Amino acid sequence: MASFYGIGVGPGDSELLTVKAINTIKNLDVLYVPQAHKGSKSVAERIATPYLPATLAIKKRHFPMVKDWDTKMESWRKIADEIKDDVQQGKNVGFLTLGDPSVYSTFSYLADILIPVIDVQTIAGISSFSQITASLSIPLMLDDESLEVVPATADKEKLAKVIDLNDNVVIMKIATNFKKVYQILKERKLLDKTVIVENASMANQRVQRLTEYSADDQLPYFSTALLKKKEA
Amino acid sequence: MASFYGIGVGPGDSELLTVKAINTIKNLDVLYVPQAHKGSKSVAERIATPYLPATLAIKKRHFPMVKDWDTKMESWRKIADEIKDDVQQGKNVGFLTLGDPSVYSTFSYLADILIPVIDVQTIAGISSFSQITASLSIPLMLDDESLEVVPATADKEKLAKVIDLNDNVVIMKIATNFKKVYQILKERKLLDKTVIVENASMANQRVQRLTEYSADDQLPYFSTALLKKKEA
Repeated sequence: MASFYGIGVGPGDSELLTVKAINTIKNLDVLYVPQAHKGSKSVAERIATPYLPATLAIKKRHFPMVKDWDTKMESWRKIADEIKDDVQQGKNVGFLTLGDPSVYSTFSYLADILIPVIDVQTIAGISSFSQITASLSIPLMLDDESLEVVPATADKEKLAKVIDLNDNVVIMKIATNFKKVYQILKERKLLDKTVIVENASMANQRVQRLTEYSADDQLPYFSTALLKKKEA
Repeated sequence: MASFYGIGVGPGDSELLTVKAINTIKNLDVLYVPQAHKGSKSVAERIATPYLPATLAIKKRHFPMVKDWDTKMESWRKIADEIKDDVQQGKNVGFLTLGDPSVYSTFSYLADILIPVIDVQTIAGISSFSQITASLSIPLMLDDESLEVVPATADKEKLAKVIDLNDNVVIMKIATNFKKVYQILKERKLLDKTVIVENASMANQRVQRLTEYSADDQLPYFSTALLKKKEA
């Protein structure tokens, strides 16, 4: 039976794909990829390049990155419709996801639309926060500790509660809301317990304590904060 | 330069190792594994078996699973000392971790002891909670949602706060504290928003809504709860 596969390619290093992801890619007939800027490959496609068969049909489609929900949903429904047709014609169809398809991924919307009509499979990938701690050889959590992963887009009150309640906090999408997060952590004297990882697992990865930044700094898009209250 | 490697083997399926984990295993001279019951292999060793070179030296050591901190630390320090000697003699030494070495792993203690004296590298793995959502093709989190991972060993007040604050909650180690968690979720009418995954990604995986259980049920050791407030 043909299926639609959401495939996690991990955070950047091509060695961080699983054997299952590679075997799944080998058996694909069609791969849908986001139309990137200026004809270049998407980040996920670039990471998976060593494993893409030369004969694989690539369908580039535009996934709008806009706030308007209806605009996004209309595009996704159209793409989901094409994927459905391909799978119903017996083709194995893939969609690559940076990191893990379960973590803030466009694939989840496609899966939600398609699960009622075709077989959908998800191939887990290494998430950016897992690779961040691996690259530093520190734990995400230990013993009775908790871990919270929260986007910096959450409101200030929720972010403050999350930070107060948990031992370990990963703050995603921090570039667009840096000042807000910086101020919450500064008020709590937690700047020196927080590291900022820019471009995790990419060639230009940079790790620095939050004390090295000031509130008005501009961070790269792929930036993540990791607060560990028990770290020195 | 020789190093000590903590290697995540994922939650059960041997295909869920990354290429990096497999390449790291290929270059090991020595692998330290926990002494399992009755001479059988540990779960992590069993998962990695297809990739273990026939010539690899295996050192079985006893890692006591006891509550007494000093007893545990004494054993770990002894093993860390042996590992240090091996690495300083130019051997690449590995230690396998079920799931992800950053998530509640004994490796973190060994790394903490050894980082000041030898080179330590961590190879990220697929965590059980990532594979749980992948196997169900549902997201861990989407959009502005948060995710909390908390052990059921946390106190009741903290568990209640975590459950009240977050959209998505993974409750680990639930087997030993099932009744407490069941009651918190029942009080909040969240039993039908919670699934229990027994033996995630193993041959005997079982997924059921929490409404199928009663408070006094005994769950298998490898059981995890996943609460998604926005799920139907």
